[in-house]
Amino acid sequence: MLLPSHAFAVLGQPFDRPRVGYVLSWRHPPGALNGLPNLKVVFSLGAGVDHLLVDPALPDAPIVRVVDSDLTARMSEWVVMHALIHLRQLRRYERQQRERLWADDDGQPKAADVQVGVLGLGVLGRDAAAKLGTLGFRVAGWSATPKTLDGVDTFSGADGLARLLAQTDMLVVLLPLTAETKGLLDAGLFARLKRDGPLGGPILINAGRGGLQVDADIVAALASGALKGASLDVFEREPLPVDSPLWRHPAVYVSPHNAAISEAGAIAAAIARQIEAFERGEPLENVIDRARGY
Amino acid sequence: MLLPSHAFAVLGQPFDRPRVGYVLSWRHPPGALNGLPNLKVVFSLGAGVDHLLVDPALPDAPIVRVVDSDLTARMSEWVVMHALIHLRQLRRYERQQRERLWADDDGQPKAADVQVGVLGLGVLGRDAAAKLGTLGFRVAGWSATPKTLDGVDTFSGADGLARLLAQTDMLVVLLPLTAETKGLLDAGLFARLKRDGPLGGPILINAGRGGLQVDADIVAALASGALKGASLDVFEREPLPVDSPLWRHPAVYVSPHNAAISEAGAIAAAIARQIEAFERGEPLENVIDRARGY
Repeated sequence: MLLPSHAFAVLGQPFDRPRVGYVLSWRHPPGALNGLPNLKVVFSLGAGVDHLLVDPALPDAPIVRVVDSDLTARMSEWVVMHALIHLRQLRRYERQQRERLWADDDGQPKAADVQVGVLGLGVLGRDAAAKLGTLGFRVAGWSATPKTLDGVDTFSGADGLARLLAQTDMLVVLLPLTAETKGLLDAGLFARLKRDGPLGGPILINAGRGGLQVDADIVAALASGALKGASLDVFEREPLPVDSPLWRHPAVYVSPHNAAISEAGAIAAAIARQIEAFERGEPLENVIDRARGY
Repeated sequence: MLLPSHAFAVLGQPFDRPRVGYVLSWRHPPGALNGLPNLKVVFSLGAGVDHLLVDPALPDAPIVRVVDSDLTARMSEWVVMHALIHLRQLRRYERQQRERLWADDDGQPKAADVQVGVLGLGVLGRDAAAKLGTLGFRVAGWSATPKTLDGVDTFSGADGLARLLAQTDMLVVLLPLTAETKGLLDAGLFARLKRDGPLGGPILINAGRGGLQVDADIVAALASGALKGASLDVFEREPLPVDSPLWRHPAVYVSPHNAAISEAGAIAAAIARQIEAFERGEPLENVIDRARGY
């Protein structure tokens, strides 16, 4: 048992509010954390904290997000898989397989011909960028604030974003959802991607947050050719509504927001370690900046 | 133009046989290289040389195979993509997508839960093993003769093969086709793979040569559960006959022997470099051992 000297309460069942020192939350009802006079830390049960920050009555305690090496590895599995699927035209060969057609035109580009742009260079973006580089892709990255990475060209700011997009064949999005990034992936952004690359058009791979994208603009961009294909793990509304054209688009992969799900045991252990360290007087790790939103 | 001081002849058109110093071959008709008194080197236009060694009248010149970094990178793209596809149950989520079903049971294993066994630790096997390790898979390898690799447990010989198979959830095959490896991937071998792994049964990924496998045994193993799934780029007969059950098996990926196709320009440049070096008196690289078959 983790934290044997602590008692546990569950929202919705009776508990003694002044005794609460720590909250572990995933999408709590806004206001539910009011009236906790001894609250010390709010832990997000996931890498994102946008679900906490939407609570206008969120208490003024430090917010800690989960950084879990498992979650990072899983996210990169999903991202690298989808980058390779678009590179190697998997759907084409699956269609040929259904037709029992043995055919190849020898015309496939290789990873080294493809420029990947990674938006977001936090723990997830950096890991995905490094692994995509190992597979042979040319990789560049963009973050709101300047960062440097080994072997990866980096860009920041609005100017940097424009430059990154203009050279990008495949856009991998691992940004946090903030006031600045909401709806970033829209028609205007897609129009700035490189159009004449070896994949026949830009590919969008979003495993960040659904709120980063405008679903209708993705559908329109696929129709106009502004996007050639997409792999989407996240959507404006989740579950993705059954009437969304994204479900049935032949160039779109839809997954049910499961690119990187932490194991409950790994999250619990990581939070217990943080609480024990905090109570020994050590500083909290992975505290988010409320003003920045991540 | 490569090798401007050399003349080129094409089989099937008239040429002066005593003038031939070098042959570049991919599946030449047996006997076609007879009567070339000044032949110095036979170059295989690919990584494999089994297509040459089937010629009982093959002249007694050194045989050089293509080692092309592009080909290695492409092979690892294909292998890593298929390893991830089986790990992340892509077909399941594609089926759910067709059904507009948003569902996840949180029960997917991660790469670190999966033991990959790589058969063949030449240039291709070593590169694939390293990249699978980067993605988080536990990787072990086997080769006919003992080899050591950083971060990869290695096995050799018949005893070593049995031990590797017994711990393997996902078998990646990048062996050369020789008298010893022909038909190696048969019912007896599948029966020795680990059965109780996190993927629900063993996965076979063969991008080596079709002659390594017994297609009918793969079909039977899929039916009996001895294999859970397969990704096959090569087959006993190619093109894969239209009546093969492999085409339509829901757990099988078929690709038309295009996992790693070299660009003609890259192969030509590599061979021209070798001829120029040879004529300067330098030793040939990548000369195969006829007795060993690779």
